[in-house]
Amino acid sequence: MSIVLPHIEALATYALGEQPPEGVPSVKLNQNESPYPPSPRVLQALRDMSEEELRRYPDAACVELRKSLSAKLGIEAERIFCGNGSSEIISLIFKVFIGPGGSIALPDPSFGLYHTVAASYQAASKAVPTREDFTVDVDGLLASGAKAIVLVNPNAPTGLLLSSGEVERLVSGFPGLVVIDEAYIDFAEPGASSLELLSKYSNVMILRTFSKAYALCGARVGYCMADRSLIEALEKGRDIYNVNAISRKLAVAAIEDAGYVNDTIARSNRSRSELTARLRKMGFDVLPSQTNFVLCAPPVQEGITAKHIEERLTEAHIFVRHFDHPRLRGMLRISIGTESEIQQLLSELVRILA
Amino acid sequence: MSIVLPHIEALATYALGEQPPEGVPSVKLNQNESPYPPSPRVLQALRDMSEEELRRYPDAACVELRKSLSAKLGIEAERIFCGNGSSEIISLIFKVFIGPGGSIALPDPSFGLYHTVAASYQAASKAVPTREDFTVDVDGLLASGAKAIVLVNPNAPTGLLLSSGEVERLVSGFPGLVVIDEAYIDFAEPGASSLELLSKYSNVMILRTFSKAYALCGARVGYCMADRSLIEALEKGRDIYNVNAISRKLAVAAIEDAGYVNDTIARSNRSRSELTARLRKMGFDVLPSQTNFVLCAPPVQEGITAKHIEERLTEAHIFVRHFDHPRLRGMLRISIGTESEIQQLLSELVRILA
Repeated sequence: MSIVLPHIEALATYALGEQPPEGVPSVKLNQNESPYPPSPRVLQALRDMSEEELRRYPDAACVELRKSLSAKLGIEAERIFCGNGSSEIISLIFKVFIGPGGSIALPDPSFGLYHTVAASYQAASKAVPTREDFTVDVDGLLASGAKAIVLVNPNAPTGLLLSSGEVERLVSGFPGLVVIDEAYIDFAEPGASSLELLSKYSNVMILRTFSKAYALCGARVGYCMADRSLIEALEKGRDIYNVNAISRKLAVAAIEDAGYVNDTIARSNRSRSELTARLRKMGFDVLPSQTNFVLCAPPVQEGITAKHIEERLTEAHIFVRHFDHPRLRGMLRISIGTESEIQQLLSELVRILA
Repeated sequence: MSIVLPHIEALATYALGEQPPEGVPSVKLNQNESPYPPSPRVLQALRDMSEEELRRYPDAACVELRKSLSAKLGIEAERIFCGNGSSEIISLIFKVFIGPGGSIALPDPSFGLYHTVAASYQAASKAVPTREDFTVDVDGLLASGAKAIVLVNPNAPTGLLLSSGEVERLVSGFPGLVVIDEAYIDFAEPGASSLELLSKYSNVMILRTFSKAYALCGARVGYCMADRSLIEALEKGRDIYNVNAISRKLAVAAIEDAGYVNDTIARSNRSRSELTARLRKMGFDVLPSQTNFVLCAPPVQEGITAKHIEERLTEAHIFVRHFDHPRLRGMLRISIGTESEIQQLLSELVRILA
């Protein structure tokens, strides 16, 4: 008899973006990381860590970070939960709210990790196809019969934003939990966030991360906001000390330097406009992104597929993302890099398509 | 209908050792943290972190740390799994091996967290009473009928070590998973570890942490060693990036400074002998500890209970641990502090018992 539970044994490993080989200069545009460093205050906070903060168990309730988020967002600290990356919170959602035999529905395509994590908790995940233009089918989600709905907004890998009116229609029309994963919200237009739904609905949860706009993928800090009853449940379900003592301090320092993060967001969004325009000039079909990446289809050309372009770019040490998904096979997802990285990418694309 | 799963709603929060109030000088001997700082190399590694390491997603497979552990322990890296503290690994054990409806058995008293985490995964946990002298009842564990056995060795909060012969009798006589939590093994006598059982049995898992001897509670790094098939299952069940980029580097730096950690262990063990002798002189009954704490019963004295002593110590800003457990109510668990902290504790105990 195997010691491993059968549904775990049967799990496929989640496919991550390819890592460039070490020591080779490369342009990494395949994981939507920030191309800009975190705020200098974050680096300073790292240097300022004391031996005592390493030696002691951290405050299990993560009070300082929650207070800092509370002040920034205007949401009571009791309605905020912090996790070891938003990936831990995604896991806890299944542990605490969905359970074995439960189900979620989410648009397709979207962030594939939700399907993997669902399976790891013996929960079902229903993919509700987006419309032909990749916009979210709210009615399809409402009719899914699932226990919970997950909406990544703006969506990944499409980059498209669902309007706040449509999000509210989803939340108000659904009896169960609606998780709105706002990993990319900082790059979206003003008013894009569903934050204000929190005061009106007790079935909504908003998920955020320090990995994108705050450039702290390595630190693993995410948070979510919801009704107190849901936050209390996450507190009960989490590991005793889930957010380490160092990363929480870096997150606080990052929040305190609002000017810096706003500047890098503005810079990323200017690069996105530039990249979108340049790609379109080359004949690419580019979805209007509200994130730090673009999803685009290369011009139809005899013998040159998106997969082929991705491979040629990889040979040139430029890493973009190609998904083996029926509706994405003809497309590439490109993270917004620095101005120089985008130039390198465009030059290489010109060469490949010549 | 509540959004929260009923078994989560019903969970009690795990009781942690009391945190001293901020800003008040205190002697904290209630969570078995190291009283000595981590190695200077750890602090240096912290200072040396680059902005790029913060900005990028870390290597999901934690290769560098596993290699470092592999070299230190003489176990193949493929048989090592790293977690966000051993608390994450405890959680994963239930997710991956036990599941809802499954069960574990563990000695009682032992590390209470296992019961809490079991309940959070809808698993049962059977407490198998230790003998009157708190030694582990191996036959009781073998007869428990549980799916898995957890043995904290040396045990917490007793500090007692189960001999390697008895551990092997447990592992060889049990068909399911046997988890040996060696959080305190670095403080135990030579030959105490069950490491060598790994090459003989595929049902054994050894759990370790950087929180005790390595003084890195704040960093949250734990690891376990087991048969490849069990490690692969943990890899499938974990969150995508479970160990942050910073803490893993600190762990590697800590491993590299073996001389430093060995010195602090020796120092802690000398203090343990001294504390044990002094307490015994004062009439305490002290269990022979193989850890960085001692469990002791104060001398019987009219009107002075263990709980009373703990409260008086707290008033003096000295924090020790009292457990509300039928067999522990007359006892105190005292972490090994610095020489000066132990002096303060002993002086205060003299005052209280006078």
